[in-house]
Amino acid sequence: MNLQSLNTPAAVIDVARMQRNIQRMQQRLDSLGVRFRPHVKTTKCLQVVEAQIAAGAQGITVSTLKEAEQFFAAGIRDIVYAVGMAPDKLGRALALRRKGCDLKIVADSVACAEAIGAFGREQGEAFEVWIEVDVDGHRSGIAPDDDLLINVGKALVESGMRLGGVMAHAGSSYEYDTHDALVRIAEQERAGAVRAAEMSCEVVSIGSTPTALSAENLAGVTEVRAGVYVLFDLVMHNVGVNETSEIALSVLTTVIGHQEEKGWAIVDAGWMAMSRDRGTQRQKRDFGYGLVCAESGEVLGDYVMSGANQEHGIISRTAQPDHEIARRFPIGTRLRILPNHACATGAQHPAYQALVEDGNVEEWPRFYGW
Amino acid sequence: MNLQSLNTPAAVIDVARMQRNIQRMQQRLDSLGVRFRPHVKTTKCLQVVEAQIAAGAQGITVSTLKEAEQFFAAGIRDIVYAVGMAPDKLGRALALRRKGCDLKIVADSVACAEAIGAFGREQGEAFEVWIEVDVDGHRSGIAPDDDLLINVGKALVESGMRLGGVMAHAGSSYEYDTHDALVRIAEQERAGAVRAAEMSCEVVSIGSTPTALSAENLAGVTEVRAGVYVLFDLVMHNVGVNETSEIALSVLTTVIGHQEEKGWAIVDAGWMAMSRDRGTQRQKRDFGYGLVCAESGEVLGDYVMSGANQEHGIISRTAQPDHEIARRFPIGTRLRILPNHACATGAQHPAYQALVEDGNVEEWPRFYGW
Repeated sequence: MNLQSLNTPAAVIDVARMQRNIQRMQQRLDSLGVRFRPHVKTTKCLQVVEAQIAAGAQGITVSTLKEAEQFFAAGIRDIVYAVGMAPDKLGRALALRRKGCDLKIVADSVACAEAIGAFGREQGEAFEVWIEVDVDGHRSGIAPDDDLLINVGKALVESGMRLGGVMAHAGSSYEYDTHDALVRIAEQERAGAVRAAEMSCEVVSIGSTPTALSAENLAGVTEVRAGVYVLFDLVMHNVGVNETSEIALSVLTTVIGHQEEKGWAIVDAGWMAMSRDRGTQRQKRDFGYGLVCAESGEVLGDYVMSGANQEHGIISRTAQPDHEIARRFPIGTRLRILPNHACATGAQHPAYQALVEDGNVEEWPRFYGW
Repeated sequence: MNLQSLNTPAAVIDVARMQRNIQRMQQRLDSLGVRFRPHVKTTKCLQVVEAQIAAGAQGITVSTLKEAEQFFAAGIRDIVYAVGMAPDKLGRALALRRKGCDLKIVADSVACAEAIGAFGREQGEAFEVWIEVDVDGHRSGIAPDDDLLINVGKALVESGMRLGGVMAHAGSSYEYDTHDALVRIAEQERAGAVRAAEMSCEVVSIGSTPTALSAENLAGVTEVRAGVYVLFDLVMHNVGVNETSEIALSVLTTVIGHQEEKGWAIVDAGWMAMSRDRGTQRQKRDFGYGLVCAESGEVLGDYVMSGANQEHGIISRTAQPDHEIARRFPIGTRLRILPNHACATGAQHPAYQALVEDGNVEEWPRFYGW
């Protein structure tokens, strides 16, 4: 297969760009002296994860137990399930550990720690638990100076569980768009996690793509996690950590109609292919549902996908309507759309089409569900 | 399996509600004297489509050729592929027709009609083509009074194709929220399609869930299409065509944490389980990522999913923070979230969990991709 013979819509990975993104992050974290544990929720794709590990990643981060099960079955042992543990899921976590998976789970409350402890004692399993630290008020976790940290740690240790580390994620880094602001939030993430770790634990794990690419100092940190860096996207472009020419994911689509008076071309990729993610809506540049490129990958001025229904996308020029659009992009024209959010767009597709350097395409399956 | 034993997150269909929704639409269209051709893009699930056909639906509408292939393989012959035909896809359409599928395809330009005609002549296949009519400036199609209609019809007939009908979809009906406005847009959809059909063709096919449930007169129309009515959702609730108690789809989720000061409960359904669809954002009531119900299905006041990351949802009270939320919804509590948009939420799940009347759950697979 090659690009020209693909059915549309299709999620295309530019493998050369992906490899450069992987090298960039790995080299950066190597030079800062920390281990790198990529978050595989972005792609859920073995070929991508193998490339990350080949470049030096140590272990992976997952967002679902299904990811843990699938990647453990593919031979990866060192896995952090980075979402607070639901007590009902402890059986699945136990099954993985019994098979030899070095699965770490996460808690941020005494109730959760007690549930893990009670189940672990009953089953004779010393779960390794990391405590989630809230460094920016963004979502889950315990503030670095909250006594609750000690109480959760105690609840774990007293029930025979292993307190393995602390984990922070400065998700609010997505809300900034200057290097100085990213450096500040990266330092806040580092300092908060290191402070929380004073209660004594081995691993200090932090990270998000913007902070990992902006941190100037990672003293006290043992590992970094990041996911979307592997493909990048328009949200990260607006945050300021990648150029559009570094975005490795695009959706290949075909022009199926026009509304010439409005300056619209209609394509066969709608929100089902792009996802409903409108992450650039409140950023400095709103790309609609994506930025339009030629089939070659070259960005075509300021054409964006300005609207989307389930299987229809509307392509239009941002500055002013292009009444020549039917001649510019005749029916059958193939375009590639850079996505707002690579994690969300990938999730809509059963496989990536990996465009390798000689123009050939390999199908790289990805999975979904829980 | 029963509701209590399901892994979370899970997409639950309340089968009794679904059957009532199916009956309501079928009885309405029976009484208006038109055939009903449900749009199966909403669920892509054979068990749901079988229920629609059992209630009286005649044929189906699809949004992808994969849907056509899957449902034809399951025994359904009469299929409209209601997205403008990409010339590259004619081979797949031909393969379906050669196997005996009564597949109808759609065009709204001379270029597309000519491409279909050229391919059809070359292959000796008289494709049945419907012309898409634009009744509300919403997306694709040709205006009812545009001479282009005649030209497209001629291009088809002169190349030996069969001009089977006209097709309209008043997608702008989603933008209204009063019965009177819906009655008006329904009449506009009907009148536009009927006028376009004056060039002579057998089928006059119109429809959207809001217009199908609001039309008072369908003179000249032969069939109606609608999709989301089978499950309903919060967008349709805001449009005014269903109560929340009629929404048959919900996402079952588990509480995994809290931020008590903020009045947040954190659940294990994020945007991966709900979709990124924020369709109620600009409607009269913004439900965030969904409306919170107890595991029983009962709506719990004004709690909504106010934020979502990939596998984390934030539950909060709309009116004011609930600082008792950790006691109200302790860790492990199971909730059900009504979605903004049933088509988008379903697409995130490999299967529905069909809750039948005795409290048992059956797994109904659904497919994705193109």
